[in-house]
Amino acid sequence: MINRRILLKSRPTGIPGEHNFEQDEIPAAPPGMGELFVETLYISIDPAMRSWIAQTSGYTAGVALGAVMRAGGIARVLSSRAEGFAPGDLVQGRTGWQSHPTLLGRQTQKLDLSLGSLEDWMGPLGTSALTAYFGLRDIAALKPGETLLVSAAAGGVGQIAAQIGLIDACHVVGIAGGPEKCAFLRDTLGLHAAIDYKAENDLTAAIRRACPEGLDVYFDNVGGPTLDAALANLRDDARVAICGRISQTVAAEPYGIRNLGGMGARRIALRNFLVFDYHDRYNEARAWLAARIREGKLHQKLHILDGLDTAPMALGMLFKGENTGKLIVKAGG
Amino acid sequence: MINRRILLKSRPTGIPGEHNFEQDEIPAAPPGMGELFVETLYISIDPAMRSWIAQTSGYTAGVALGAVMRAGGIARVLSSRAEGFAPGDLVQGRTGWQSHPTLLGRQTQKLDLSLGSLEDWMGPLGTSALTAYFGLRDIAALKPGETLLVSAAAGGVGQIAAQIGLIDACHVVGIAGGPEKCAFLRDTLGLHAAIDYKAENDLTAAIRRACPEGLDVYFDNVGGPTLDAALANLRDDARVAICGRISQTVAAEPYGIRNLGGMGARRIALRNFLVFDYHDRYNEARAWLAARIREGKLHQKLHILDGLDTAPMALGMLFKGENTGKLIVKAGG
Repeated sequence: MINRRILLKSRPTGIPGEHNFEQDEIPAAPPGMGELFVETLYISIDPAMRSWIAQTSGYTAGVALGAVMRAGGIARVLSSRAEGFAPGDLVQGRTGWQSHPTLLGRQTQKLDLSLGSLEDWMGPLGTSALTAYFGLRDIAALKPGETLLVSAAAGGVGQIAAQIGLIDACHVVGIAGGPEKCAFLRDTLGLHAAIDYKAENDLTAAIRRACPEGLDVYFDNVGGPTLDAALANLRDDARVAICGRISQTVAAEPYGIRNLGGMGARRIALRNFLVFDYHDRYNEARAWLAARIREGKLHQKLHILDGLDTAPMALGMLFKGENTGKLIVKAGG
Repeated sequence: MINRRILLKSRPTGIPGEHNFEQDEIPAAPPGMGELFVETLYISIDPAMRSWIAQTSGYTAGVALGAVMRAGGIARVLSSRAEGFAPGDLVQGRTGWQSHPTLLGRQTQKLDLSLGSLEDWMGPLGTSALTAYFGLRDIAALKPGETLLVSAAAGGVGQIAAQIGLIDACHVVGIAGGPEKCAFLRDTLGLHAAIDYKAENDLTAAIRRACPEGLDVYFDNVGGPTLDAALANLRDDARVAICGRISQTVAAEPYGIRNLGGMGARRIALRNFLVFDYHDRYNEARAWLAARIREGKLHQKLHILDGLDTAPMALGMLFKGENTGKLIVKAGG
């Protein structure tokens, strides 16, 4: 059997895309001891990928030139030499951008389909959803009735963060780019307001109009000028969960934050975080998220592209803001 | 008896000074019910004063034009109609810039001279010292053996923060302006290193040389480019206590912070704070500080100017960085 792979060819300056990758095909490797041979079904396309292929890598060792692009995904087990896995099992693991990888059993998790569907595991039970959960629960300590602002609110993490805010009976405002995404936030997800940052000259004033009493929590997925505008609207005791900096990852010049003092707000706290630090609590989070899915209170719009070939283009779409919803590639199945 | 007062004449743009104030003399007011009539002995000159007289005031209602300049100080009671106070008592309170004010008993505290001398109460038992204590203990949660960087380390708050770091067996580095202050930090206080920011072209690199493994805690008294350079040197799990922004208070253009992500450091937290929030724990802090003074482990260099008249000039010195040590005005006694 053939393993079709997408390899990193060059490191991007700015937005990554097809020019940074190349394909090859090699004979699929039979599983060694402790390994699984799988067929990749879905691949998650995430902002963190940009840092994995950057010149100076961020929080994790980068992808080497010529290596398979790293990615998390869902796969079906074809053969197994790892305890606890059998052919036909559906698993989550580090598939990378390849059709028939061999995975380490200890880095792979069997999906519990009693919690949700295959698509749910790519969406509201996936890593993006866990990121939203721990960012709000642990980092920001969101409380009922507070005012929550979420940037990139139509994106993979942002959608879930915004809905957790609604479930927690908060006043929730989302920022997104374009009228379509904003309509989705207001009409489909039921946010109290949505701000189209592309249509606003003065984002600080737009946030103030939507949240006249200021922000208790800002869930930041983008950094840069959006973060600055949010900082200018913080209330006393506000918390900022810094999840991502998608605007800054590809920026030629880093943006200078001017409102760090929160324009005089007292006792403000900014924290960045990594979802992987919460590994021991994933089950707690998934149980909560699954219950909300069953109650019909938590949804996730998936933006699905068809075919492994589309992965490089999908990554570019993410940084151009062309996706509405959690971006995934359907690689097989 | 005459009360000599210094009044706010105009709001400063940039560094405040004598041109923003004027003096007058009025008959001293006899104390009403619940009040004390006092002679001011020492007045504290603090960075927060700049925000009290700014156009747009920060965390507290500003000083009105024509009003007595607000200040904390130490005074001797001349007559009392407040319970618990008698002539001759030494008290701490909101004296303002005036020689013979009338104070509210409930806003005034009798000094416990068993904890330290009158000068200790202006220095290592005063509000600046409490600020350092709660900033490190509560906001930054400094732990033994960690690396601590303190900016404005020769100033009122910075000196105490640096010494608390030494008492806690930390690697302590201070930033100050000029060789004299740096020699004081190294030779008198015993810091592991001192960085003269005026002599460094690349403050980020200078911090890296002094703290090659990065910072666990940054106690920030200045904001602006110094904060940015510190952020670039954070380790994973670093905490930044944002105490003051003296460089930004008088800056014409706010500086844009570029390194908020901590250059990839994980789990970093930035928090600003107000010492007044810890009012209920002042006694705990003063007991600890007094014990360290008795052990000879905690000192404070006071920079004392003589005469109430010097207060406006003293305020200007503070923002020009011309003081070494906690700046106070001796108003009487």
